[in-house]
Amino acid sequence: MPPRPPEPVGPFADGVAHVDGQFVPVAEARIPLLDRGFTRSDATYDVTHVWRGYIFRLDDYLDRFERNVAALRMELPLPRDEVRQVLFECVRRSGLRDAYVQMTCTRGIPPGGTRDPRACTNRFYAFAIPFVWIADPNQQQTGLNLHVSSRRRIPADSIDPRIKNFHWLDMTMGLFEAFDASCDIEVLTDGAGHLTEGPGFNIFLVSRGRLTTPAEGVFDGMTRRTVIELCHELDLPLAETSVRIEDLRQADEVFLSSTAGGIMPVTRIDSRSVGNGAPGLTTSLLQQIYWDRKAQGWHGEAIDYAT
Amino acid sequence: MPPRPPEPVGPFADGVAHVDGQFVPVAEARIPLLDRGFTRSDATYDVTHVWRGYIFRLDDYLDRFERNVAALRMELPLPRDEVRQVLFECVRRSGLRDAYVQMTCTRGIPPGGTRDPRACTNRFYAFAIPFVWIADPNQQQTGLNLHVSSRRRIPADSIDPRIKNFHWLDMTMGLFEAFDASCDIEVLTDGAGHLTEGPGFNIFLVSRGRLTTPAEGVFDGMTRRTVIELCHELDLPLAETSVRIEDLRQADEVFLSSTAGGIMPVTRIDSRSVGNGAPGLTTSLLQQIYWDRKAQGWHGEAIDYAT
Repeated sequence: MPPRPPEPVGPFADGVAHVDGQFVPVAEARIPLLDRGFTRSDATYDVTHVWRGYIFRLDDYLDRFERNVAALRMELPLPRDEVRQVLFECVRRSGLRDAYVQMTCTRGIPPGGTRDPRACTNRFYAFAIPFVWIADPNQQQTGLNLHVSSRRRIPADSIDPRIKNFHWLDMTMGLFEAFDASCDIEVLTDGAGHLTEGPGFNIFLVSRGRLTTPAEGVFDGMTRRTVIELCHELDLPLAETSVRIEDLRQADEVFLSSTAGGIMPVTRIDSRSVGNGAPGLTTSLLQQIYWDRKAQGWHGEAIDYAT
Repeated sequence: MPPRPPEPVGPFADGVAHVDGQFVPVAEARIPLLDRGFTRSDATYDVTHVWRGYIFRLDDYLDRFERNVAALRMELPLPRDEVRQVLFECVRRSGLRDAYVQMTCTRGIPPGGTRDPRACTNRFYAFAIPFVWIADPNQQQTGLNLHVSSRRRIPADSIDPRIKNFHWLDMTMGLFEAFDASCDIEVLTDGAGHLTEGPGFNIFLVSRGRLTTPAEGVFDGMTRRTVIELCHELDLPLAETSVRIEDLRQADEVFLSSTAGGIMPVTRIDSRSVGNGAPGLTTSLLQQIYWDRKAQGWHGEAIDYAT
């Protein structure tokens, strides 16, 4: 069972952002209207989190973020060490022991009269806000009702999903469709009958004692990576492979992985029960280990709130 | 030949924006860091323009903008009449006689701890800045060198391209590839050998006295619509149809249509000449009529700069 959600602490409990070299309460944080990060969604971002005062896998996140900034032909306007310091400082100033911590690099503002992305100075924004849950611990006890969307995830030959990006309209409009179908959330397909991912999560199936997760057309989520590592460690058979919609409908267990909630059981697919309709044993086991270890600072660096 | 680019006028010559009910110089205009319009590119926008003091087809743009706001399940936080007034006021305060005028509706800021787009209050932003050219009048004399991108335009079953949106990473990364190939700009395909559109424009071909433009997987651009109407009026044969890459490479003439520049000749495809390598006769004729009429306030409403 995952721990209770965090409680606000301190004067900046709603969060702290870093914009233009200043730390500000997140509600006051603003970015230029003409930043192509907004007007052309010309940006990459990444999200780590803090749990019980420990920031999770920060160097892995920074590696991925730097790789994606380079893939979009951008340059971070500050060195990696300073990015790291800014993230720590956002968390420290917020006082949040459990936080959602985002770093973003945008193309920046084109000089007047031009549209040339090469002429922009890239920009960096960061913030720490209270931990965000796709499904909170109470919802996780019953499990999520997952809609299989008729919508295709933006394909990799349009935009590489491994470059974490804000192009979410497929996922957002899919979410409205899920709500219309009385579901909680949706998974998108590749348009040819295979699962990809959903808004902010990867998906795992357990069938006849074997785990599978889609290999293609998905983001290499850090919680996904953590689950895979955990399965290797525990000698649970797992394959990154092609996963069909029928596989999902016939699975014994289904769960989602995300920074925003860890490992979250799915107990219904389009309102039909998965297995016996309760969170599965493998899911619950992985969830238990994940949160037990996190409570002990697993893969974490301690935030020094005192300084 | 299109007219010369505009010259800045007045104290707000770099542009005026409308944010949170205030008119501000565009360089000072900022939006909340946590607006899903930025963090999830959860927004629609539209762009009209002002030429020689006349705003172009404003009611057609407002019809389309309102349709797209509704398609994303958003509501404009102000009535259409006020949107209209805000746009006029941005232009009037800027003093710009030639301007690029953008209106945007974003999902807004989710309440703390939730990701539910239904819980957001939608937001409206607008700005007028000096007219922007994909190719300025000088470039248009030689014509553009167009790259055929290997990249697929985000398909309609992921995101409907008729809902004007900021999901431009396919087009932006395609632009970098075009620059690498020593070209000026690129057209994207549907991944099956057919043309779609490029960054901010539709494309037209002239072959054996007949015009064609892609029918599917493209935005219903207002300049595209204007060109089609003009062809009907002039009895030029035109088909909205499926257009193959080979058709492009064998065309007698090629041009782009965009608010950001009108009708712009393409004279090279991946550095190989189109026809004799000069802007084509049909292209030049349409371009001449377009700018002649615009100088007379065609489809326009006069801005009252005095009040």
